[in-house]
Amino acid sequence: MLPPRSVSLVDRARESLPAEVFAYYAAGAGAQQTLAEQEQAWREIGLRPRVLQDVSLVSTEVSLLGDTVASPILIAPTALHGLAHPDGELATARGARKAGCRYVVSMRASRRLSSIAEESGPFWQQVYVLNDRGISDEVARRAAQVGATALVVTVDTPIVARKPAEIPALAWATGLLDVLDGRDPADPRLQQARDLGPPDLRRLHEVSGLPVVAKGVLRGDQALKCRDAGAAAVVVSTHGGRQLDGTITVPAALAEVVRTVGGEVEVYADGGVRTGGDVVRALALGARAVLIGRPVLWALAVGGAAGVHEYLRDFTADLSETLALAGCRSAADVGADLVEGPAS
Amino acid sequence: MLPPRSVSLVDRARESLPAEVFAYYAAGAGAQQTLAEQEQAWREIGLRPRVLQDVSLVSTEVSLLGDTVASPILIAPTALHGLAHPDGELATARGARKAGCRYVVSMRASRRLSSIAEESGPFWQQVYVLNDRGISDEVARRAAQVGATALVVTVDTPIVARKPAEIPALAWATGLLDVLDGRDPADPRLQQARDLGPPDLRRLHEVSGLPVVAKGVLRGDQALKCRDAGAAAVVVSTHGGRQLDGTITVPAALAEVVRTVGGEVEVYADGGVRTGGDVVRALALGARAVLIGRPVLWALAVGGAAGVHEYLRDFTADLSETLALAGCRSAADVGADLVEGPAS
Amino acid sequence: MLPPRSVSLVDRARESLPAEVFAYYAAGAGAQQTLAEQEQAWREIGLRPRVLQDVSLVSTEVSLLGDTVASPILIAPTALHGLAHPDGELATARGARKAGCRYVVSMRASRRLSSIAEESGPFWQQVYVLNDRGISDEVARRAAQVGATALVVTVDTPIVARKPAEIPALAWATGLLDVLDGRDPADPRLQQARDLGPPDLRRLHEVSGLPVVAKGVLRGDQALKCRDAGAAAVVVSTHGGRQLDGTITVPAALAEVVRTVGGEVEVYADGGVRTGGDVVRALALGARAVLIGRPVLWALAVGGAAGVHEYLRDFTADLSETLALAGCRSAADVGADLVEGPAS
Amino acid sequence: MLPPRSVSLVDRARESLPAEVFAYYAAGAGAQQTLAEQEQAWREIGLRPRVLQDVSLVSTEVSLLGDTVASPILIAPTALHGLAHPDGELATARGARKAGCRYVVSMRASRRLSSIAEESGPFWQQVYVLNDRGISDEVARRAAQVGATALVVTVDTPIVARKPAEIPALAWATGLLDVLDGRDPADPRLQQARDLGPPDLRRLHEVSGLPVVAKGVLRGDQALKCRDAGAAAVVVSTHGGRQLDGTITVPAALAEVVRTVGGEVEVYADGGVRTGGDVVRALALGARAVLIGRPVLWALAVGGAAGVHEYLRDFTADLSETLALAGCRSAADVGADLVEGPAS
Ligand SMILES: Cc1cc2nc3c(=O)[nH]c(=O)nc-3n(C[C@H](O)[C@H](O)[C@H](O)COP(=O)(O)O)c2cc1C
Ligand SMILES: Cc1cc2nc3c(=O)[nH]c(=O)nc-3n(C[C@H](O)[C@H](O)[C@H](O)COP(=O)(O)O)c2cc1C
Ligand SMILES: Cc1cc2nc3c(=O)[nH]c(=O)nc-3n(C[C@H](O)[C@H](O)[C@H](O)COP(=O)(O)O)c2cc1C
Ligand SMILES: Cc1cc2nc3c(=O)[nH]c(=O)nc-3n(C[C@H](O)[C@H](O)[C@H](O)COP(=O)(O)O)c2cc1C
Repeated sequence: MLPPRSVSLVDRARESLPAEVFAYYAAGAGAQQTLAEQEQAWREIGLRPRVLQDVSLVSTEVSLLGDTVASPILIAPTALHGLAHPDGELATARGARKAGCRYVVSMRASRRLSSIAEESGPFWQQVYVLNDRGISDEVARRAAQVGATALVVTVDTPIVARKPAEIPALAWATGLLDVLDGRDPADPRLQQARDLGPPDLRRLHEVSGLPVVAKGVLRGDQALKCRDAGAAAVVVSTHGGRQLDGTITVPAALAEVVRTVGGEVEVYADGGVRTGGDVVRALALGARAVLIGRPVLWALAVGGAAGVHEYLRDFTADLSETLALAGCRSAADVGADLVEGPAS
Repeated sequence: MLPPRSVSLVDRARESLPAEVFAYYAAGAGAQQTLAEQEQAWREIGLRPRVLQDVSLVSTEVSLLGDTVASPILIAPTALHGLAHPDGELATARGARKAGCRYVVSMRASRRLSSIAEESGPFWQQVYVLNDRGISDEVARRAAQVGATALVVTVDTPIVARKPAEIPALAWATGLLDVLDGRDPADPRLQQARDLGPPDLRRLHEVSGLPVVAKGVLRGDQALKCRDAGAAAVVVSTHGGRQLDGTITVPAALAEVVRTVGGEVEVYADGGVRTGGDVVRALALGARAVLIGRPVLWALAVGGAAGVHEYLRDFTADLSETLALAGCRSAADVGADLVEGPAS
Repeated sequence: MLPPRSVSLVDRARESLPAEVFAYYAAGAGAQQTLAEQEQAWREIGLRPRVLQDVSLVSTEVSLLGDTVASPILIAPTALHGLAHPDGELATARGARKAGCRYVVSMRASRRLSSIAEESGPFWQQVYVLNDRGISDEVARRAAQVGATALVVTVDTPIVARKPAEIPALAWATGLLDVLDGRDPADPRLQQARDLGPPDLRRLHEVSGLPVVAKGVLRGDQALKCRDAGAAAVVVSTHGGRQLDGTITVPAALAEVVRTVGGEVEVYADGGVRTGGDVVRALALGARAVLIGRPVLWALAVGGAAGVHEYLRDFTADLSETLALAGCRSAADVGADLVEGPAS
Repeated sequence: MLPPRSVSLVDRARESLPAEVFAYYAAGAGAQQTLAEQEQAWREIGLRPRVLQDVSLVSTEVSLLGDTVASPILIAPTALHGLAHPDGELATARGARKAGCRYVVSMRASRRLSSIAEESGPFWQQVYVLNDRGISDEVARRAAQVGATALVVTVDTPIVARKPAEIPALAWATGLLDVLDGRDPADPRLQQARDLGPPDLRRLHEVSGLPVVAKGVLRGDQALKCRDAGAAAVVVSTHGGRQLDGTITVPAALAEVVRTVGGEVEVYADGGVRTGGDVVRALALGARAVLIGRPVLWALAVGGAAGVHEYLRDFTADLSETLALAGCRSAADVGADLVEGPAS
């Protein structure tokens, strides 16, 4: 019964969060068209199960950037967990570790990265390129020092799109942005770099020594550009409908990106992934993993570290059940035959 | 006026059944997407009637596995009829016999197969492959002994998918599962075999001497696998939306399966079939028969044996009328020209 | 403002008619799917207007079976106008004559054909082939005698489909079926002939000496069959969604029929045509005329002969305006370029 | 938050305008199908953003008919601004000038063109061809004299389509149509010319000496006809759904028109454009600019000149943000790669 439960999860989060926080987390950019369509986009891809396969043992393990992880379900980087729970990212980190899921820590965290790292299992660090490159570089370096195993550089945010709900004032009370370090949040050096470009990917890789994952591409040629700038992986993403509104869907973009660079870099899918079936669709389209944004925030708001753990555990169980029902023994076992092709 | 009546049938059943029983019967798996879409999927196929045909005599007879049956409308195997009516499967069997429809008895019946067989006309026996193969084999053997003319082996259920409503506690009071025979229902030997495979089909055929129908395929290559394992027929089915959720639709899968194995094994369609028009669509896509699940349960709940008989009689009459309006003299007379092709 | 008005026409008719009469007129067969979709089907075809054409004079005239008629908008044959208005078909005939529209008189009329003919301008007679061919032939002969200029033989009704609302009991009081002539309506000789076939078309032509229009085809090959049986024209029609339910749409069928027989026989379109734009769509797809069923009944119920006249006059005015806005000087001027093709 | 705000703009306008004025502005022709679909039509085109582009400086400038304008967002010609605001077109002109947007003044203005010209920045004059060509020519000549830099000749209006709401009586009190000059509005010489044709385009160009923009084409061949008649640009438009109802959509027509004449004349898009994303879609399909009708009227009603200015400024800011998020430095930088093609 996971999907019904995860629906009610939103409702429970809506009840337990201050209205402006819920609105901030839930919002999409512009007319919120991408947001409104993103869950449906996965559902429109019909699954084609195999039968009479031995599925006595089903493994959800995947290999990501050379590491083996227990589940292809990653926590997407989302800002300001302090708004959802007093322990903020510390709780998220605990929940993720317990569930064996990879956590991508946002650069806009409410807690110091060093403390998060202590609570966390292996994690990846998300980085925004700011006008002051030095700050971004510093985050990348620190992350490497405290154990991050990859950098996720967000490439779809040369500016932050306007949304119906902006950052709640509460944010300053519930937790500091690590990068602020006492600086004035209105300081233009802390704004996104509008001239963010391929050299930034390369430099962040160099300063940190970590593999770079470019987050936020929707086209094959843009994925190529990231690969050429040294990215080891790309995340096909609309930023959860929070940046350019009215885009093509993630599954459509995923197919194109995999066709173009799938043989050369790893590809992950992000946005509106809610069920084990959605994960199987993403894997069948060529993704190696998926990222989950808002539901983790709802779980955190409702149940703290335990909520996050339980959510990720149930989601992974749903994936495991779905793999079995689809006749697959593992995530790697999922092939293009599992979904309708454009020709069918 | 059949379709309007069959709609109200659901409502009448909802009123007469305990809420948890109705919920158990009605439920789909996961987000219930396949369930929600399955009736509409048939309706989307436009019918192309012939005119100026002599339809003075219309026959609904078809030949199934060498037998002639009065109607291509079969009763799908559904569990636990004791929850719907005190007489359980005995009432269903009586209604089916009176209507001249083939009854596929579920292995999860509330009544002993021997008693059902006494009330029933020619019937087929559904079998789940359990961890303890001996139990499945025993059911197959007993079924053959008491007169079943075919085995329907369900291949889409290596595990039972979670649903919003599980088996009501009431089930233990309203009727025994024949296979339990005093065993503990939690006994792992009674669980579905996750390693269910082609050899199971072959063995069940051998132990029973009956032709085997593989129920639950949605792909041409999977149907081939069943044929290679000795199946004489396949049922294209999503298990009524109760197993893998978010699949391709039955009509889409039917076309592919018929293309692949239609010349070699018989193909039946199952799921969301509700009107004579739906049956004509299935026949036009190459099915020889259809299976009806939930509506039979509703009819049983509302009217017992008489309700089942009346429902099947009216449905067959609707099919007969539809055949006449489509310019067909018989089920065999229905060709691919009766529906829009992918090219039209 | 024609379309808004014609919407309110339904509402006004609903108010002024006895509920069972409204239900009988409004009903579709089966699940009423074809009925529900038929108006939308026209709307889905985008119009492609020409500009900078001189449309000072716009003519709605068309030539039908060699006659010139003022408008391509015909009154479809519908039964029992006595249920809608005390004057029944006499009022319809007067309204049609005044508007210059061709009236197709139903064989199931509430008034004697001879009286209708007196009130009518040039008219066509619809004929059902009954078990007793003599009765159908007699209607055809009489129609020719009193001035009908064509026979419309309904080919989609080997049986009358069941509908949520059958003929109201009131029918016997409000008007006689001409064909009854004192016979018992339950007399099987008065039922539709299930063996209706091509020879019936040919014979009706011969006994009446009138050109035969075959009403109720949805396929190219069926239209060919009608042509081969001597039909001079075919009506692409679903019988207003009152016979086989769940068919392909009239516009889709129209295109196929025109492709197949358009060069040899005239083709008319029937079902869900409500606006001047719908008529232009039908003409662009190759129809020479359209038939209008229910709205004429609503107009008759609301305003008698004057209501019918006003409705047809306004509809023709809407067509005229639509032609001008589409850059066409006449119905004949409408070409395939006026609508999106399958390729666009 | 622009789109949400512009939605509320409609609501605020509905509140502040007399009901009959709001209805007149809001209305579409016929069944209002084109109107109902026009905003959605843009939204269905998925955007394909570029990433890692330097968007430090984003320019919305475009070159139109040889002039450089600050924004590709033009004010569409709409009648009778006196109904929305006491200052009528004077207020609109002031708002447009302040926002740096090109204003296309309707020939059906409530204020004298000479006064509007005084308040306005560079402007274009819309002309209807009337039965009395002399009047249209006179408007064209006067417009040239008072500084118009182009004529927009509306080619989709040989007659004015009927709408649910016609010109409010109020119109005569709130402002004179400049072309009336004391004439009786019912004077047939003031009606649209039904024989409007290519020579009118050519003559208007000659009498005014201004480049002619043909407004209201939806087909490639019709655009060619305009080019052959000397038009320097065409506006792909359904007249905001106020002329022929049920047409193909503007984006679909735009692609065809650009394919046919895009290399030879400028192409603008008009109808249902509401967001920066819609503008990017139009540019990507080959338009050089867009026209905005009703929202400007709502802004005028709600806030006069300041309202118009604020609306245009916010819209241009939204475009600028959208360009940045899409990875484009300027309107000219937008290519076909920014949207899904028919092949994708
Ligand atoms: C409240 C919120 C904050 C976010 N903050 C960041 C962030 O700091 N960095 C980033 O790359 N993406 C951020 N994202 C985008 C997520 O990483 C992810 O792309 C998106 O949430 C996925 O869609 P989903 O929420 O539908 O699962 C944020 C998303 C949300 C909802
Ligand atoms: C309550 C219920 C119990 C079922 N039990 C079984 C079963 O024991 N064995 C089996 O093969 N299928 C079972 N099915 C699936 C049906 O055989 C059939 O595939 C499905 O009901 C067809 O869809 P329909 O209900 O829409 O007609 C069950 C379905 C329902 C609704
Ligand atoms: C109340 C009613 C009675 C009808 N009676 C006849 C009839 O006697 N003969 C016939 O050929 N068609 C009959 N039709 C079908 C019409 O001729 C026509 O095909 C249909 O009404 C067209 O669809 P529309 O109502 O959407 O315009 C009838 C339709 C209705 C609604
Ligand atoms: C109230 C109103 C009056 C209009 N008057 C004119 C006009 O005088 N001349 C003209 O060419 N178009 C006229 N139009 C059409 C507009 O120029 C434009 O094509 C349309 O409004 C664009 O659609 P939009 O309103 O969805 O942006 C009018 C539109 C409206 C809504």
